[in-house]
Amino acid sequence: MMIQTITEQKPLATWIRTLQPSPLQDLLALEDTNVISFALGLPAREFFPLDAFRQATQELLTNNADVLQYMAARPLLKQQIVRIMQMRGVQCRAEQIFLTTGAQQGLSLLAHLLIDPGDPVITETLTYTGMLRILAPLRPKIVTVPTSRQEGVDVHALEQLLRSGMRPALIYLVPDGHNPLGVCLSQEKRHHLAELVRHYQVPLIEDDPYGFLAYAPMLPPIRALEERQVLYVGSFSKVLAPALRIGWIVLPEDLGSKLSAVKEAMDLDSATFAQHVAAQLLQKEDFPAHVRTLQAGYLVRRDTTAAALQSYLPPTVRWTLPANGMYFWLELPPAVDTGALLKHALLTEKVIFMPGQAFCAEEMRPTLNGIRVCFSHCPLTDIEEGIRRLARVLGQAMPTWN
Amino acid sequence: MMIQTITEQKPLATWIRTLQPSPLQDLLALEDTNVISFALGLPAREFFPLDAFRQATQELLTNNADVLQYMAARPLLKQQIVRIMQMRGVQCRAEQIFLTTGAQQGLSLLAHLLIDPGDPVITETLTYTGMLRILAPLRPKIVTVPTSRQEGVDVHALEQLLRSGMRPALIYLVPDGHNPLGVCLSQEKRHHLAELVRHYQVPLIEDDPYGFLAYAPMLPPIRALEERQVLYVGSFSKVLAPALRIGWIVLPEDLGSKLSAVKEAMDLDSATFAQHVAAQLLQKEDFPAHVRTLQAGYLVRRDTTAAALQSYLPPTVRWTLPANGMYFWLELPPAVDTGALLKHALLTEKVIFMPGQAFCAEEMRPTLNGIRVCFSHCPLTDIEEGIRRLARVLGQAMPTWN
Repeated sequence: MMIQTITEQKPLATWIRTLQPSPLQDLLALEDTNVISFALGLPAREFFPLDAFRQATQELLTNNADVLQYMAARPLLKQQIVRIMQMRGVQCRAEQIFLTTGAQQGLSLLAHLLIDPGDPVITETLTYTGMLRILAPLRPKIVTVPTSRQEGVDVHALEQLLRSGMRPALIYLVPDGHNPLGVCLSQEKRHHLAELVRHYQVPLIEDDPYGFLAYAPMLPPIRALEERQVLYVGSFSKVLAPALRIGWIVLPEDLGSKLSAVKEAMDLDSATFAQHVAAQLLQKEDFPAHVRTLQAGYLVRRDTTAAALQSYLPPTVRWTLPANGMYFWLELPPAVDTGALLKHALLTEKVIFMPGQAFCAEEMRPTLNGIRVCFSHCPLTDIEEGIRRLARVLGQAMPTWN
Repeated sequence: MMIQTITEQKPLATWIRTLQPSPLQDLLALEDTNVISFALGLPAREFFPLDAFRQATQELLTNNADVLQYMAARPLLKQQIVRIMQMRGVQCRAEQIFLTTGAQQGLSLLAHLLIDPGDPVITETLTYTGMLRILAPLRPKIVTVPTSRQEGVDVHALEQLLRSGMRPALIYLVPDGHNPLGVCLSQEKRHHLAELVRHYQVPLIEDDPYGFLAYAPMLPPIRALEERQVLYVGSFSKVLAPALRIGWIVLPEDLGSKLSAVKEAMDLDSATFAQHVAAQLLQKEDFPAHVRTLQAGYLVRRDTTAAALQSYLPPTVRWTLPANGMYFWLELPPAVDTGALLKHALLTEKVIFMPGQAFCAEEMRPTLNGIRVCFSHCPLTDIEEGIRRLARVLGQAMPTWN
């Protein structure tokens, strides 16, 4: 009898066969080498409140074995999140907070809750890779609307779709510190979007990992303007520590029990110990002051990056200063293959970034060719040198433009 | 315009509408009241190594902000799990260990990997509720084989299905400390199952949360007899602490990258901080000694429960002493409605358990009516009183049998 492995015999589920290996683990490995990385959206480890974490765990693990047990979601943590949402400009109640394993799981749960195969789902032409990976196995019909690094999503195009009768299972947007474009939607666009989803009664997932990392006065999220149709997804990954893997959804209360059942099947419960740690830490820590520290710290990195881009980049590479988040989008001529550019940059200059292809919800539109440069994680002292290297790579890729 | 909530307008995904609310959160809430609970499969908090946890977190959080960053799966933890698997009688390599958010996520990932809608999946007539919840949205055709509290799965019935040409997407079994029957499969059955899945080349998910909680010499899992077709799922929830939410899969290496992509879409990464804590703790702690402590501690509870069952239960209620795990299965006459019995027991005697219906992969077979009594979590001093109350409830439910 021939010996076969599982993958050779009964085929895997159909959608698995179309799955591309993710570059994330490979890129994470590179973060530890002497490569200068603008690739992954990692927060800076210097800003993690390490002492507060140590104190919180010490207090928790003294005479209280219950913090190690299975546990229903933490009322205390939900109360803290209600206060954090108020800082963000959103009024909500603890009963509307749904805890998840990072924002990624929040997006995944909502997608499973809302999408049947074949349902239309609206995204921008460039959008968060992780959302595209969630959508793939659910087989919706992805319908894209144009977007840009200057203004973000084209709300009029979105309105046309809804007016024409399309009722998507969900609309997915990142209104602040857009990934990968870095753009922050205007107040006018937020109002327009809130009106649209209210009028046409379609759910909008508002993904907000970067809202607190603001370098200008924060605008309240769309959830602040529309409570019923907007499903807000938040996260501690960028403002406390990714290793907690704690995110949350602010959602209408009647969806909570349905979502619990979906989540329970997936993993029973999120990292309950981490939830205890976060609740304990937030009770002691001055979170608003912590956020101001982050804003000041990342502002320096953003401006250092901007100054280096200004000094070294070929003038034909266009970019915009982001008002929040972690990303610059460098717009490149349509002919540049950004995947090949990444390989070339790694080999010749030991500098990496995210090629724009990774974020394409459909085939690349020429006006949106580019690369994402993350400024949050690269040590401050390496930024200028990194951008200088990147500029050399770009100059070689576009010789006729220099 | 009428205002509608999301659930009233565009319908949710089709499978969600069939979802029953889970009793888990309700039952967890009761665990904290003055009810005596044999309901949920919780480990005893007295056995959590609290001091070791405190020491591990203090060491980790001293001058090492990296433990709070995003992080690829922990090589150190995988090495520790390889050693733990050796104790369990399984030889494997670190490259074959896949870390998950508890065993529940391991089961969920494997189901997503292997099942297309309509595929046959083989389970026992009574099986773990959490697996049934995972299967529902994937819409397989569930095919059941008989099982019993004395002997467990009927391997000959399983063989008949395979011989008749059925090729299931997966077979799901809990060979040690079966949930809910408490039964431990014989060595002969393990060999027979290993031969079957090897010969017919079908994947077997071996769910092993209870294997270490053995009150007789442990039998090696089926994975020790068959490396290619058996996908072994392990967990720290019952042997270290549930709040870690760390489980693992031992799987053929060629499945690892596919499974990574599935997991990344779901939640990017598991509780990475908890993984650091577990790795640090296992490096310092004498894990074999800890397991012996657990075995001795739960043995006393099992035997106290058995003595009380012997003393107080109507003789018509049949049960078997479990060789491992946390559960007794009390077999009841077919006429008893165990769901109604639970409500009655809670109201009149303040004692709770899991009704057998919760574990039915299909309509209840009369020979398998019963209730699951978990002995691990109830304080030792409450066990006798709890069983006495339960016996009164059972006596009232079956007056003609007394």
